[in-house]
Amino acid sequence: MMTLREKNSVLDRINDELSASYSDRLGINDPVNDTVPSRAEVIGVTGKLLEIIFPGFEGAGTYPSTRVLLGAVMRELSDQIGRALRHSKGGECADCQEDCSFKSDELTIKLLNALPGIREILKADVEAAYKGDPAARNYDEIILSYPGLKAIAIQRLAHELFTAGVPLIPRMMTEYAHSETGIDIHPGATLGKGVFIDHGTGVVVGETAVIGDNVRIYQGVTLGAVNFPKNACGMLIKGLRRHPTIGSNVTIYSGASVLGDVTIGDDSIIGGNVWLTESLPPGTKITALPPEHRMKFLNGKK
Amino acid sequence: MMTLREKNSVLDRINDELSASYSDRLGINDPVNDTVPSRAEVIGVTGKLLEIIFPGFEGAGTYPSTRVLLGAVMRELSDQIGRALRHSKGGECADCQEDCSFKSDELTIKLLNALPGIREILKADVEAAYKGDPAARNYDEIILSYPGLKAIAIQRLAHELFTAGVPLIPRMMTEYAHSETGIDIHPGATLGKGVFIDHGTGVVVGETAVIGDNVRIYQGVTLGAVNFPKNACGMLIKGLRRHPTIGSNVTIYSGASVLGDVTIGDDSIIGGNVWLTESLPPGTKITALPPEHRMKFLNGKK
Amino acid sequence: MMTLREKNSVLDRINDELSASYSDRLGINDPVNDTVPSRAEVIGVTGKLLEIIFPGFEGAGTYPSTRVLLGAVMRELSDQIGRALRHSKGGECADCQEDCSFKSDELTIKLLNALPGIREILKADVEAAYKGDPAARNYDEIILSYPGLKAIAIQRLAHELFTAGVPLIPRMMTEYAHSETGIDIHPGATLGKGVFIDHGTGVVVGETAVIGDNVRIYQGVTLGAVNFPKNACGMLIKGLRRHPTIGSNVTIYSGASVLGDVTIGDDSIIGGNVWLTESLPPGTKITALPPEHRMKFLNGKK
Repeated sequence: MMTLREKNSVLDRINDELSASYSDRLGINDPVNDTVPSRAEVIGVTGKLLEIIFPGFEGAGTYPSTRVLLGAVMRELSDQIGRALRHSKGGECADCQEDCSFKSDELTIKLLNALPGIREILKADVEAAYKGDPAARNYDEIILSYPGLKAIAIQRLAHELFTAGVPLIPRMMTEYAHSETGIDIHPGATLGKGVFIDHGTGVVVGETAVIGDNVRIYQGVTLGAVNFPKNACGMLIKGLRRHPTIGSNVTIYSGASVLGDVTIGDDSIIGGNVWLTESLPPGTKITALPPEHRMKFLNGKK
Repeated sequence: MMTLREKNSVLDRINDELSASYSDRLGINDPVNDTVPSRAEVIGVTGKLLEIIFPGFEGAGTYPSTRVLLGAVMRELSDQIGRALRHSKGGECADCQEDCSFKSDELTIKLLNALPGIREILKADVEAAYKGDPAARNYDEIILSYPGLKAIAIQRLAHELFTAGVPLIPRMMTEYAHSETGIDIHPGATLGKGVFIDHGTGVVVGETAVIGDNVRIYQGVTLGAVNFPKNACGMLIKGLRRHPTIGSNVTIYSGASVLGDVTIGDDSIIGGNVWLTESLPPGTKITALPPEHRMKFLNGKK
Repeated sequence: MMTLREKNSVLDRINDELSASYSDRLGINDPVNDTVPSRAEVIGVTGKLLEIIFPGFEGAGTYPSTRVLLGAVMRELSDQIGRALRHSKGGECADCQEDCSFKSDELTIKLLNALPGIREILKADVEAAYKGDPAARNYDEIILSYPGLKAIAIQRLAHELFTAGVPLIPRMMTEYAHSETGIDIHPGATLGKGVFIDHGTGVVVGETAVIGDNVRIYQGVTLGAVNFPKNACGMLIKGLRRHPTIGSNVTIYSGASVLGDVTIGDDSIIGGNVWLTESLPPGTKITALPPEHRMKFLNGKK
């Protein structure tokens, strides 16, 4: 057996080594520990926002009033936004603290003001799921158990913060949704109303994608990029338009990839496993021929 | 800075706006807050059922006796089923409360009575995983860390409740499994014994699918539907048979899709990325030719 | 209504039935309940290790010092490793307890000693993500919200324990990562530095896969096996080399499968949906022709 003293001396040495490596401020650590937003807090706030939007359907069996939840989100989200703003400035200036607090209150209220409108749109999303899925028995089942609705609801919230310029937090929110649902929608993507994502595992929607109204998307669909322009120094140029624009009333079946800054016209249907890097006019149905198959009869032996 | 009073007045206004929107009873909210089953409670009960089935392998390091767990499930699941039943009746009738309590006790006991049999079947599932995966070192590893086993165990529990007519809760259970594992098996699907799903992310098994004994399924496999019949009003007809029937001793490799109300005969093998919308006789091996590839040599330059 | 007495008698009977089925020691239960590692504890320790590696970025908003975290990991991980070691010996010998404690302390310290080196490598992974993704705004965003980094960080920790011979726990750790991210990397796989997995849902990397430096992998990529040799008794041979070796500076786009004990040379590019079961020389670009498509114009009618 190692004695406690021996163990402690080993741990002290490892601690010294690690602590020395933390001094690199441009590294992968924040030794000051007080400006990075907390993932647990951001997830907690996201849960409260969902409780406000779908009252009676979220929460751990007890349901605070919407007014109480609004107060909690006001405090907690504003605090996290303040951290994100200060962090993105390097946590430096002294008077920054006050400006950031003011700005983070403003940004939080901007999101809260958007909630009634987001509720309207999410109602259209629930209706789209009901109309699009023969297994859906009623609206409640969709709100309680459809991963697509959860991912879309969180993305709509995150998108408000993203377009308002909040750093870090929107992506933390959509990554929480990704982790829960397997659906990875960047907070920068713009979604119309009545969007339905069925099953959803493996769906990827890129930062500059635009999706119209009443669009239906199945598992494994990618709305992605094809090439990444670099600047003179060979570094990627960030934020350029590079993802598809999907018209309204479009259906995209499982495993299809639509890549690049292309436009899919309204009322189109994209079949399973289609691989598309070009635009389509409205009302196009495109299907992929299945791969050529070989058959063999095993006579009971594999 | 905003004063506290200013903030409160803004929050009061948003609260009024949201509360007004809650009055729509057919909407996406349940302002009464006391009949919708609680997702957190349903997940908690599901965890306890897994502790009963795999004693010593679940739980947070302390292990109540099976008898204590059975008592807890009796209370908690019956409560949630009661909520689901009342909710599906609109939470209306006064004497309904008592009927629902009786029925929810009955339905809970029906599930508990099925547990010894489910344990038998899950033992066959564990054996199938051990026999089917060269990376599996022993049974314990499978129970502790194989997502396929977790998804299948939860679906088997949910399927009992689904066939007994419990609303909402079965799908909440399988969606919990989907969220944890990336494997989306509808509670309506019927699974034989000795089913092994390896890796599993992206697997989708539809509501009316039937899977035989000793079936092996890899990541990204879809057992789905091809078309959705509508009624005279243009609404989807719910619940129709529309998914495949998979025979016994069938293996389905990664990325394959089997779609529609087709039958795959016993002892068949379906290769990776096969796209199948027709039935296969027993003992068929079907493989997809890989896509045509283009090769280019880069001389060190991409 | 059922009386409480009636309920209890039903539960007693079910309990007897279940308890009888637990006596099968080779089964799917551990009635002794004190040697199987606890999943909750293993996840907790994994979280603390991430806090040590990325200080200020993990944890629930409060950040214990690295020294405190090291002490906690020492105690908790050593305890879980001790359980895993005793369990793998059948929990039998009396003096085994002491040996296992000594060995589990040793194995824990081995991992802790590796942490500074793992931090170095993970920094290269963060840089690779920043250079490889036009949507990445800064390093912090990657640490806070990129699932690929989380999956890789946890796999690197688990791989240390796996190569040191710790049973059960490494796979529990990577399965936790799989559940959080949809990325399933076996703890046995060997990863170079500067590995970037984007989006990641559906990625599978097998037990004996080897990945070089600066490799980029997208969602849905499989580095898998093609066939599983069996021994004379028809049982799978465990642990054989059966997965690909990927050179350095290789990019593998979404949905590609590389299968079997093949070698992909440095500086190669593997296109989306490629299906590869052969080796490639360095500097090869291989792309899959898209499936043949059929187009139809719908004139506004689907």
